[in-house]
Amino acid sequence: MRYKLLIEYDGTPFCGWQRQEGVPTVQQTLEEAFSDFLQTETIVWGSGRTDSGVHAKGQVAHIDCPKDYTPLKIQGAMNKRLQNVPITLLEVEEVGDDFHARFSATSRAYEYKILNRRTPPALEKNRVLWVAHPLDIALMEEAAGYLIGHHDFSSFRDSRCQSSTPFKTLDHLSVERKGDMILIKTQARSFLHHQVRNMVGTLKRVGEGAWSPLKVKEILEAKDRRKAGPTVLACGLYLTDIKFDS
Amino acid sequence: MRYKLLIEYDGTPFCGWQRQEGVPTVQQTLEEAFSDFLQTETIVWGSGRTDSGVHAKGQVAHIDCPKDYTPLKIQGAMNKRLQNVPITLLEVEEVGDDFHARFSATSRAYEYKILNRRTPPALEKNRVLWVAHPLDIALMEEAAGYLIGHHDFSSFRDSRCQSSTPFKTLDHLSVERKGDMILIKTQARSFLHHQVRNMVGTLKRVGEGAWSPLKVKEILEAKDRRKAGPTVLACGLYLTDIKFDS
Repeated sequence: MRYKLLIEYDGTPFCGWQRQEGVPTVQQTLEEAFSDFLQTETIVWGSGRTDSGVHAKGQVAHIDCPKDYTPLKIQGAMNKRLQNVPITLLEVEEVGDDFHARFSATSRAYEYKILNRRTPPALEKNRVLWVAHPLDIALMEEAAGYLIGHHDFSSFRDSRCQSSTPFKTLDHLSVERKGDMILIKTQARSFLHHQVRNMVGTLKRVGEGAWSPLKVKEILEAKDRRKAGPTVLACGLYLTDIKFDS
Repeated sequence: MRYKLLIEYDGTPFCGWQRQEGVPTVQQTLEEAFSDFLQTETIVWGSGRTDSGVHAKGQVAHIDCPKDYTPLKIQGAMNKRLQNVPITLLEVEEVGDDFHARFSATSRAYEYKILNRRTPPALEKNRVLWVAHPLDIALMEEAAGYLIGHHDFSSFRDSRCQSSTPFKTLDHLSVERKGDMILIKTQARSFLHHQVRNMVGTLKRVGEGAWSPLKVKEILEAKDRRKAGPTVLACGLYLTDIKFDS
């Protein structure tokens, strides 16, 4: 039996999603809890890796299970085992054998949170990027417009990126303010390594007034990572939603 | 010179606001940072104590300072000293000698957050009370209506309460839902010890369907702590706003 999992986690104490020797990761924590519950070695296949410190409100994964449990039974047994770590199974659903969390995914959505006020966060520590100087979100929104669509995103691609191509189609990139908080939302079929954080770092430079919105078009066309802004901190990033072919 | 401070803190690592021997508190942490900055023993007078684990988005306090610093200088110097603890000075303002954070306060507002969904919080751990069973907020709102006004709140008063009277005037008590989150907001000139958490514990019983809204009127009139609901967890409570005579 194959089950689809919808997962929320606080990325702070984890070295990212993917299992790695000697460090705590979300995948490993889930696999150990499943292996304990199912009494057999279990692999948890994620839709996408998140970096160290990145959070998820809607990561999706799947497992194969030797026995036919009800989704509620799995959810209850697992959340009990996860009660001392900041990971929770929001939903568990039985799916067909043709479902694959990674290969069936048709779009991924992320949200980046910037706390834009003079004083550092106390309650939102490790949950936001803190920017003390006021950012101009109208300029950021204008700049974002140049990044939407099908482009060579080499300027926003980390050197360790394993994608076979720098071309991606960005379906959505918006900037909105809610009080002190700036939310940058984006969606694409898939992203290059660090693409979201590098785009946000570039939009931040625009919001500070250091770069014009049009400069972002030039940066994109330069296809040169050194032209774009810095990679912003992981702790402001949330994997929010993954869509699948129905 | 007297300065008014507006303070945000994450109550999780603190044993409440008030200085106590041998345990970390918000007041002590602030006093140590001020004493270091001002190079003289400094007392931080808070508007109200918060219990262990209770958060603040808008605690107010005042200090007396031997030298005339600009508010921005104080804010910057203090937030630098507080950078490794989840306390931040949101605002610093010069005030007259007749201002007193505790005695000049004319109203206090709190918010209580309940995460009402099947699965425990990962991202909101230590920030909410988790209630798995769906709560009926229309019933809770109706019950809240009986508590508004001038009453003897003995049924909602902790036995350790040091107030000279059980009479308080509750100006506001509302219940609203935003997605999975239920927000209970309340305001009064002052509250009895544990009054907010005991009122929330009682409203929760109503939301679960265990008690009718009218039962809350009976509980209030019984003036007996044993009749009301339990004291809910501290971690869902936020001190949000304190008002002063202008």
